[in-house]
Amino acid sequence: MIVAESNIDDSSPEILGYAMERLLEAGALDVFFTPIQMKKNRPGVLLTVLCAESDADKFSELMLRETSAFGIRRYTAERRKLRREFATVQTPHGEVTVKIGRLNGQVVQVSPEFESCRELAEQANVPLKAVYAATIRAMPPSLLND
Amino acid sequence: MIVAESNIDDSSPEILGYAMERLLEAGALDVFFTPIQMKKNRPGVLLTVLCAESDADKFSELMLRETSAFGIRRYTAERRKLRREFATVQTPHGEVTVKIGRLNGQVVQVSPEFESCRELAEQANVPLKAVYAATIRAMPPSLLND
Amino acid sequence: MIVAESNIDDSSPEILGYAMERLLEAGALDVFFTPIQMKKNRPGVLLTVLCAESDADKFSELMLRETSAFGIRRYTAERRKLRREFATVQTPHGEVTVKIGRLNGQVVQVSPEFESCRELAEQANVPLKAVYAATIRAMPPSLLND
Amino acid sequence: MIVAESNIDDSSPEILGYAMERLLEAGALDVFFTPIQMKKNRPGVLLTVLCAESDADKFSELMLRETSAFGIRRYTAERRKLRREFATVQTPHGEVTVKIGRLNGQVVQVSPEFESCRELAEQANVPLKAVYAATIRAMPPSLLND
Amino acid sequence: MIVAESNIDDSSPEILGYAMERLLEAGALDVFFTPIQMKKNRPGVLLTVLCAESDADKFSELMLRETSAFGIRRYTAERRKLRREFATVQTPHGEVTVKIGRLNGQVVQVSPEFESCRELAEQANVPLKAVYAATIRAMPPSLLND
Amino acid sequence: MIVAESNIDDSSPEILGYAMERLLEAGALDVFFTPIQMKKNRPGVLLTVLCAESDADKFSELMLRETSAFGIRRYTAERRKLRREFATVQTPHGEVTVKIGRLNGQVVQVSPEFESCRELAEQANVPLKAVYAATIRAMPPSLLND
Repeated sequence: MIVAESNIDDSSPEILGYAMERLLEAGALDVFFTPIQMKKNRPGVLLTVLCAESDADKFSELMLRETSAFGIRRYTAERRKLRREFATVQTPHGEVTVKIGRLNGQVVQVSPEFESCRELAEQANVPLKAVYAATIRAMPPSLLND
Repeated sequence: MIVAESNIDDSSPEILGYAMERLLEAGALDVFFTPIQMKKNRPGVLLTVLCAESDADKFSELMLRETSAFGIRRYTAERRKLRREFATVQTPHGEVTVKIGRLNGQVVQVSPEFESCRELAEQANVPLKAVYAATIRAMPPSLLND
Repeated sequence: MIVAESNIDDSSPEILGYAMERLLEAGALDVFFTPIQMKKNRPGVLLTVLCAESDADKFSELMLRETSAFGIRRYTAERRKLRREFATVQTPHGEVTVKIGRLNGQVVQVSPEFESCRELAEQANVPLKAVYAATIRAMPPSLLND
Repeated sequence: MIVAESNIDDSSPEILGYAMERLLEAGALDVFFTPIQMKKNRPGVLLTVLCAESDADKFSELMLRETSAFGIRRYTAERRKLRREFATVQTPHGEVTVKIGRLNGQVVQVSPEFESCRELAEQANVPLKAVYAATIRAMPPSLLND
Repeated sequence: MIVAESNIDDSSPEILGYAMERLLEAGALDVFFTPIQMKKNRPGVLLTVLCAESDADKFSELMLRETSAFGIRRYTAERRKLRREFATVQTPHGEVTVKIGRLNGQVVQVSPEFESCRELAEQANVPLKAVYAATIRAMPPSLLND
Repeated sequence: MIVAESNIDDSSPEILGYAMERLLEAGALDVFFTPIQMKKNRPGVLLTVLCAESDADKFSELMLRETSAFGIRRYTAERRKLRREFATVQTPHGEVTVKIGRLNGQVVQVSPEFESCRELAEQANVPLKAVYAATIRAMPPSLLND
């Protein structure tokens, strides 16, 4: 995976919020901002984009075009990922997708999927946290990691 | 409630971490740090202490003694709190205390208590998140807010 | 204006991102997060909601329902605002709305409106910063504050 | 004391770093930035200015003129300050000014003055931390708060 | 390019602000601070220095001398930069230097130079943002990237 | 040294504070949090673990088990460290351990050890900063780096 970064001291937050959306739409694995303190008392922002190695130039160029950056620095990081599966559980509010992560076969992560929970929360007009809790309660024993 | 604050640019993080502990031991309602950027390129820290109005001078003095601050600023904030109750639920890992918050009688918050979950996680050598999930699953219907 | 705040150490970022949206949809004047460092090594979040005084209870309740907060603290702040007007300028990419701020009659703020610029940037497939620059260039002399 | 704040999502860090300098030159008691996370994925900045009550309008106006803000919110905070004195101590690198803070007559703060230490550090070409340490070692017993 | 970093939990913000200046004077490509949360409730600071590979030892040593760090970690990052040119544009406030960035010959960045704008803003006693806007309006069509 | 990182948007601060403790107990060289701003308006946290290369898999697995992470990214950093020694100095409050750092034989770091100072501060009921200052004053000339 490539980690591409740029220290930004000459773009406004409005420009950066939009740049994040464009970078995600273009297929970046992840995009995030870190608050940093730069020279001359500037409250800067570190823009970080994670992408596949084959996409490094594409995303570097997009970073340069959509922000005020004159340069990008990049390095390679190794990824270690859980094997992912998806399941569906039935809650009082409706069906929820659950993302499951396995390490050497063992379930170590069981996460209600955000978009799936958000949809039900809006339909049922209940707090999102209630849909998450309902999902955890509705999980079959085979998915429990406790 | 009193909010007492001081911008710190002359204490090290070691001193501040210790000051947080002392302030909590002395009975502050809450203590927290916010990263701030001060003049002359200083990566400062805002120390905030929440306390009862009758304790304002006690905590201001402790802030002045334990950090490098020469001044404290204080203002009053109104508190709006949920009515709290505690319950106990039985999980596969043992008993967990649960904190319940009610708004006009309705349950709006049901939180596994951290220290209670931490103890079981350490005893059972399972992740803390698993004890939280087990607690949510073990809750009786009367405490559900979904 | 009311400033309503809560220190959050028991909700995940997913829950908080959704809460921001709900609070804005419900009409909050502004909603923002500040990273704070809480006791027991917790990387907490300060949730701040700005609202009209008459809405203080409505938003406090929504904060309690949508996050894990058990309490809200509130204080009153005085607002000092520029008088706002809107104008339209014609750029090579299309029409852009501009927000103008006056202080004692004098123009002190001239800001291309984000949503208006975003729309043109997407249509023309040019960087947002280019639409902002084009808007600044297209402004009539009467709106210049230089 | 007045605390005057504005959430900034439309000024670049360059503009804000300069605004900090202008506000300090104009006599603000303190000026600092806090990183905040605003709507639409914007990495915003909270600009805070502390000033005397009689200066609130002067600094509010300067904040509006030097940044992209359309509004300022203000509230009053009470100050509690140590009584300040200055002393001079003789170090191997030269004379250093020391700021002393007393609480009910007792010394609770003894701080080498930054500008005074910086000057010696530059002249002697030694690290600033070494000048601070030399100053602490050179203090007369009457100033010790241990 | 070398990225050299150190987690600081035992230097005060005053010491760090001065260290930033010394590192920049010594020729670092960039220096910045990131707020981090370290063990034992310490509000630490990550000091990052960017420099040429041939300067890695020089800057590591300066970091060790000017802060409380006992260790530095370093890794190599690849740089991708726009080709830079400078131009001069004539504004109502005077001449401004503009930094231009090209990607495969195409102009993708046109930035008013901070120091050049700051000088005019101070001379004319107008907000810095006004000089930036005047510079954007004064740019010749050949430099436009919209 | 291995730097192992994960962007967390689905664990609460309570879970993360506990994870930091577990990772440190398991022998990580350092563990810290950085506030980051993730997509969908999420106030995320970057968890960073530093460890020996031979421990990379052990700590990656622990990060996956104790947080909600589905993936870890890792890269190698070179370490440059001062040679460390410990000394004991006698202060009015008792004995303090001091950590000394040498670069090419020269003393560049002399740091009172936190745990040693904390113990005396608690016993003597004096501020921690006073014990630090007393330690600096009590150092023998051979350890001075000024």
